[in-house]
Amino acid sequence: MAYAAILGYGTVGSGVAKVLTDNGAEIEKAAGEAVKLKYIVDVRSFPDDPNADKIISDFSVVENDAEVGIVAETIGGTGVAYEFTKRALLAGKSVVTSNKELVASRGRELLGIAAEKNVNYLFEASVGGGIPLLRPLTLCLGANRIEEIKGIVNGTTNYILTCMEKGGMSFEEALDTAQRLGYAERDPSADIEGKDACRKICILADLAFGREFDPEKVRTVGIGGIAAEDIKICSGFGARIKLIARTGQAEGKEYIFVEPHVVMPTCMLNGVSESFNAILVRGNAVGECMFYGRGAGSMPTASAVVGDMIDAVLHREKRRSIGWGAGNSDRISDGSELVSRWYVRSGERWELLDPCSRADTGDWDIKYRIMD
Amino acid sequence: MAYAAILGYGTVGSGVAKVLTDNGAEIEKAAGEAVKLKYIVDVRSFPDDPNADKIISDFSVVENDAEVGIVAETIGGTGVAYEFTKRALLAGKSVVTSNKELVASRGRELLGIAAEKNVNYLFEASVGGGIPLLRPLTLCLGANRIEEIKGIVNGTTNYILTCMEKGGMSFEEALDTAQRLGYAERDPSADIEGKDACRKICILADLAFGREFDPEKVRTVGIGGIAAEDIKICSGFGARIKLIARTGQAEGKEYIFVEPHVVMPTCMLNGVSESFNAILVRGNAVGECMFYGRGAGSMPTASAVVGDMIDAVLHREKRRSIGWGAGNSDRISDGSELVSRWYVRSGERWELLDPCSRADTGDWDIKYRIMD
Repeated sequence: MAYAAILGYGTVGSGVAKVLTDNGAEIEKAAGEAVKLKYIVDVRSFPDDPNADKIISDFSVVENDAEVGIVAETIGGTGVAYEFTKRALLAGKSVVTSNKELVASRGRELLGIAAEKNVNYLFEASVGGGIPLLRPLTLCLGANRIEEIKGIVNGTTNYILTCMEKGGMSFEEALDTAQRLGYAERDPSADIEGKDACRKICILADLAFGREFDPEKVRTVGIGGIAAEDIKICSGFGARIKLIARTGQAEGKEYIFVEPHVVMPTCMLNGVSESFNAILVRGNAVGECMFYGRGAGSMPTASAVVGDMIDAVLHREKRRSIGWGAGNSDRISDGSELVSRWYVRSGERWELLDPCSRADTGDWDIKYRIMD
Repeated sequence: MAYAAILGYGTVGSGVAKVLTDNGAEIEKAAGEAVKLKYIVDVRSFPDDPNADKIISDFSVVENDAEVGIVAETIGGTGVAYEFTKRALLAGKSVVTSNKELVASRGRELLGIAAEKNVNYLFEASVGGGIPLLRPLTLCLGANRIEEIKGIVNGTTNYILTCMEKGGMSFEEALDTAQRLGYAERDPSADIEGKDACRKICILADLAFGREFDPEKVRTVGIGGIAAEDIKICSGFGARIKLIARTGQAEGKEYIFVEPHVVMPTCMLNGVSESFNAILVRGNAVGECMFYGRGAGSMPTASAVVGDMIDAVLHREKRRSIGWGAGNSDRISDGSELVSRWYVRSGERWELLDPCSRADTGDWDIKYRIMD
């Protein structure tokens, strides 16, 4: 029997509790032993909740309970989440999380502590929500040199772009719809400015290239400037405008950036609509493969968090080694020299340019890379 | 340092040797130690091959070399491949393979021997070629009750159907083209009759539901009867006819079958063309996710085989537990009671029927399930 605690009983935390309860038999089969939820740490009270008896407000109870081997951090942010994660790892507990902000900014440090204490710090849920992605990338594709990763990793912006395209809405109308339906937060800036996508592509780059990428230094263009007109023009040739997070290796350098792309109908990402996520990975042996699914939401994210719990149980004695080295910003490019086809527009004039770098695109008001 | 042997130096075996050589640094990083190729067992001689010095014809040299801990079986079939796999496992070596025929027919027995000898029998490459699929299904999605798996798992038939649709060819012309370009074998029956897809969906069902599915007992309809006319009619509403292998749970029973489906443009499988594979998995927590990529070919398949070698090195001491119990055919259905929409045709008359089971589709010459 493995004992677990959940930190933060919000959308993801409550999903984790539900999956542990509802799918106990499946989890026991996959992990080789039952995983029992012992505590939920939250400062709020939930009197009518089926797990009310497990809810405590003092994290140190978890920290000092040697029986608890696995902690799921679903608080979010880099404040108390960082403090509790560090303390849990130092107390010899494996930590699993969906917190991309913390992983992107402090992942290397926390993985270092986990390695020292011979426990696991796992974060499959931090990119692509429920989609199996980080483990396939590092393990199944471990025999590949990763050439490129590009994907739709933010469901909120993809939902807004889908509304603009299919519903003929302006950006403001689409954002309003997304907020009303719960796909966008009241303060949607981290999503629409591309910051959330940026954190996620940094985590993917960290794992693929084995060194730290700082989200603060990554060129990030959001979707706020996308005009309904460009979406309409592109749909005329079957293309869709998508916010793409992208990293890869070219000429001995790694590039990384987030910006809207014109995705042609020949590209599998073209069909990824609403709040779905999809990530294309190109390896030098496997060629191109894609991972698609729900990138957010209570149950899909919990699926990945509990998947990591299973992994932590399976590797209690033998820690799974994941890690990346220090960064070296000299070798990181913002992708502007990357050659691609371009969609360009000024006023009513638009063109599709032959493959060239950003430097050669000329003096147009709107410039989006084309993805085939 | 881990030492490996390859059995069979054909398309896949030579790819495995190439990946081990070309991507040695990546493999060492992922496995935590170098993986060195010591022997290649083949009865043929390859005098000008860069690995000529490693080629031997006597398997017992591998069997008796205690230094060799991992054997990649890339012979195929159920004859000598079965014998050598069994002997390698009994000699305490982990075996990794792309041999779906052997896994589908003898997987339970071979996994049993591996468990007894505390070694690994891994077969990620046996379904979906290079696509990470079996490990994500059993590990990352381990917290889910798997509700359904449906996919395009045979590249040859998908290539033929793509030719029929995009090139307006008849089945015979498309098969001829596929054979000329190397996408279909000279004897293409295992592919076009759906037997290859059937073996693969049996392996997926074995893993998802934990008990043995016998390919011989699975209702399997191939693509030989698909008329150019139906492809044309369906393309009129944006749909494509695809050979779908499908398994799931409904009303306490598991169903499994292989048959052509009409895939609507709303379904992600609609965009999977040429020799690509894609598999949709629906879990009760994660919802629907999809895995897409190259399902065959020397290098993609080798990517998965070497990925399994890395896993075998990482789990040398602690065997990865995969297994399924004995079968129980009473609880297996051929899916005919499964309710779905249908495309039906007799002569020039065709219709799309509302959701119903096969029993309710009426007296039509052609009946294909619709997948939305």
